[in-house]
Amino acid sequence: MPSAAQAVWNDIQRIRAEAPLVHNITNYVVMNTTANALLAAGASPVMAHAAEEVEEMVGIARALVINIGTLSAGWIESMLRAGREAVRRKVPIVLDPVGSGATRLRTATVERLIAEAPPAIIRGNASEIRSLVSAEQATKGVDSTHRAEESVDAAWALARRCRCVVSVSGATDVIVGSEAGKEIVIRVRNGHAWMPRVTGMGCTASALTGAFAAVNPSPLRAAAHAMALNGIAGELAGERAQGPGTFQAAFLDALFRLDAGEIERRLLLEEV
Amino acid sequence: MPSAAQAVWNDIQRIRAEAPLVHNITNYVVMNTTANALLAAGASPVMAHAAEEVEEMVGIARALVINIGTLSAGWIESMLRAGREAVRRKVPIVLDPVGSGATRLRTATVERLIAEAPPAIIRGNASEIRSLVSAEQATKGVDSTHRAEESVDAAWALARRCRCVVSVSGATDVIVGSEAGKEIVIRVRNGHAWMPRVTGMGCTASALTGAFAAVNPSPLRAAAHAMALNGIAGELAGERAQGPGTFQAAFLDALFRLDAGEIERRLLLEEV
Amino acid sequence: MPSAAQAVWNDIQRIRAEAPLVHNITNYVVMNTTANALLAAGASPVMAHAAEEVEEMVGIARALVINIGTLSAGWIESMLRAGREAVRRKVPIVLDPVGSGATRLRTATVERLIAEAPPAIIRGNASEIRSLVSAEQATKGVDSTHRAEESVDAAWALARRCRCVVSVSGATDVIVGSEAGKEIVIRVRNGHAWMPRVTGMGCTASALTGAFAAVNPSPLRAAAHAMALNGIAGELAGERAQGPGTFQAAFLDALFRLDAGEIERRLLLEEV
Repeated sequence: MPSAAQAVWNDIQRIRAEAPLVHNITNYVVMNTTANALLAAGASPVMAHAAEEVEEMVGIARALVINIGTLSAGWIESMLRAGREAVRRKVPIVLDPVGSGATRLRTATVERLIAEAPPAIIRGNASEIRSLVSAEQATKGVDSTHRAEESVDAAWALARRCRCVVSVSGATDVIVGSEAGKEIVIRVRNGHAWMPRVTGMGCTASALTGAFAAVNPSPLRAAAHAMALNGIAGELAGERAQGPGTFQAAFLDALFRLDAGEIERRLLLEEV
Repeated sequence: MPSAAQAVWNDIQRIRAEAPLVHNITNYVVMNTTANALLAAGASPVMAHAAEEVEEMVGIARALVINIGTLSAGWIESMLRAGREAVRRKVPIVLDPVGSGATRLRTATVERLIAEAPPAIIRGNASEIRSLVSAEQATKGVDSTHRAEESVDAAWALARRCRCVVSVSGATDVIVGSEAGKEIVIRVRNGHAWMPRVTGMGCTASALTGAFAAVNPSPLRAAAHAMALNGIAGELAGERAQGPGTFQAAFLDALFRLDAGEIERRLLLEEV
Repeated sequence: MPSAAQAVWNDIQRIRAEAPLVHNITNYVVMNTTANALLAAGASPVMAHAAEEVEEMVGIARALVINIGTLSAGWIESMLRAGREAVRRKVPIVLDPVGSGATRLRTATVERLIAEAPPAIIRGNASEIRSLVSAEQATKGVDSTHRAEESVDAAWALARRCRCVVSVSGATDVIVGSEAGKEIVIRVRNGHAWMPRVTGMGCTASALTGAFAAVNPSPLRAAAHAMALNGIAGELAGERAQGPGTFQAAFLDALFRLDAGEIERRLLLEEV
């Protein structure tokens, strides 16, 4: 079995070699950011949301990323269409429930997506994940008011109900899911303090999770390896940047330049 | 009474300490930019425009920023809904009339927003403000063809009609409004020549004005202090950048790093 | 007759001096990017898509750029309205068929735009251009799977059918069109390997093509000079950047700072 660092690196190499097409139905705020992150990581992003074309686009994609950050009625319909087609074609779905808990529309849309187009991976912040397993309204807009580490029970409750992997991002990322009948928790402690000060870093983590899900058949490993790449690129960016503005560009550079040695030296991933 | 610099700094400290939720219904071009500016300044932005959720989102926000830069029918309805709810809940509204004067749709929408959801602050460029008080069509798309300084009368005409603060951005920013029955003009002379060469710098000023309005009960002070922060961050960015591309990142870094001393040294604010 | 470098520089000087208003109906992913590129190059961009205002906006613009990157029914209607008004007013249209070939909706929309609002210039990647002259489905989402150089026949087939200029971007850009009854091919070999790793660089080329079409009455020259500026700015950016993230900012800086000497030294343009 390869080391954790070797396994992360294997996935990155596959993404760079195969440039998998990742279909994103995402929010207006981050479209540019996540397209650039996918390109920098080696994937081939496409953004398409018209009801008339989403099924066709999913048909040529290797992963579908659905992100509800700037929702409206027409887009929900397209998300459902694309999602059902992805399920039919066994294209893995990554669902990012941005702002779930902040409004009823968001929470209800996530529940409907889970029911009608079951995702392989749900990736959100702790408040979003908690909103899906209890009635507490914990989200402050789209920012979390909880830490991932204190939300492991909520993550498990959601993962068991949806039979999917749940990836909770935070200072420590917590990824939970079952593999071969065994329940596994992976923690990734990479990252940088400025990441929550840049919009769309969570959405970027979800988009990258889509790229990993395109090349790695295990949703659990895909989710964890994506958070590892995200966190390590964040650390490298933090060392070069003077603040959250220069951080963004440095983060993309790091995704693009990252090598096996850097992952070996930095990876803080533990599995229990 | 604190000095002007101290008053600006007090607001910045409150934004950083309280991270007020600022609800933005804004244009596609700048969503990412203004979200990042709000995050860098210490606020918590949320972008939400669905008619089904805007009232709920306004209900947890401390300011509402409405920006008409890329208008369409459905969005106008959501702006009105959110605006009326904000008025009902006494959440201050900042209105940015992007491109008012360039098309009838834009001018008419601004008039309707002013009538149905009166803003605390209108922040625009000189051509946009003039379009709201006279029939002259002065806007060149979304760029101004007038200076703020020559538009003080127009600003006053609009401020008196709307009983609100009017903040006109330009090489010199002019902010006019009444406080305790007295008419006051504040001029801010900070800024950098490259700011008009970066898209969304005006929209960013409006978004920051929302963050200040969330923590300062005086719309006049909130509007002026926001322009001061905007201008000083622009000066710092201009000193680090090689052109309008690197300017953007340096601007966000400056918003994030700015300290009391920098404001004390640079602030060019006068009140009459 | 001026040298090629002199002709490119003449156009750039006119854009900087006249700041032509360029009306863009473009996709959500790149709006910010292309607005910033137009501003950095000296033009005045406006993004407007509401059916109620596009005709009025085209009426004050000097070029119209239509880009189908994130299509939906309402936007198609606005593109057609704006396009027909542009034709009526002799405002040159640049059409970017993003992702044509990837879905039927995209290919069909491009065909309808060509029929109802004939563009002066079609600018796309090789796969997109090929999708418009043969039934082969060659596009991988929005990325090309062909080189421009091997698609010259397809470019000519499209140019002859549409009686327009066709500009195919790639490692070598190929621009074809007729002038004074003579068929001309221009190749531009400027550029940088990281350009395909940044989202919206093709869309940026189209937006810049709009700025050149606003000041140069020859669509063929406008298209070629835009690709020259694009490629040379890319080379300059590549020399300053550490990866695709810092490349973006450096690209805008280069558009803004570029001088006649740089064009003279770097231009690789040949005409046959």
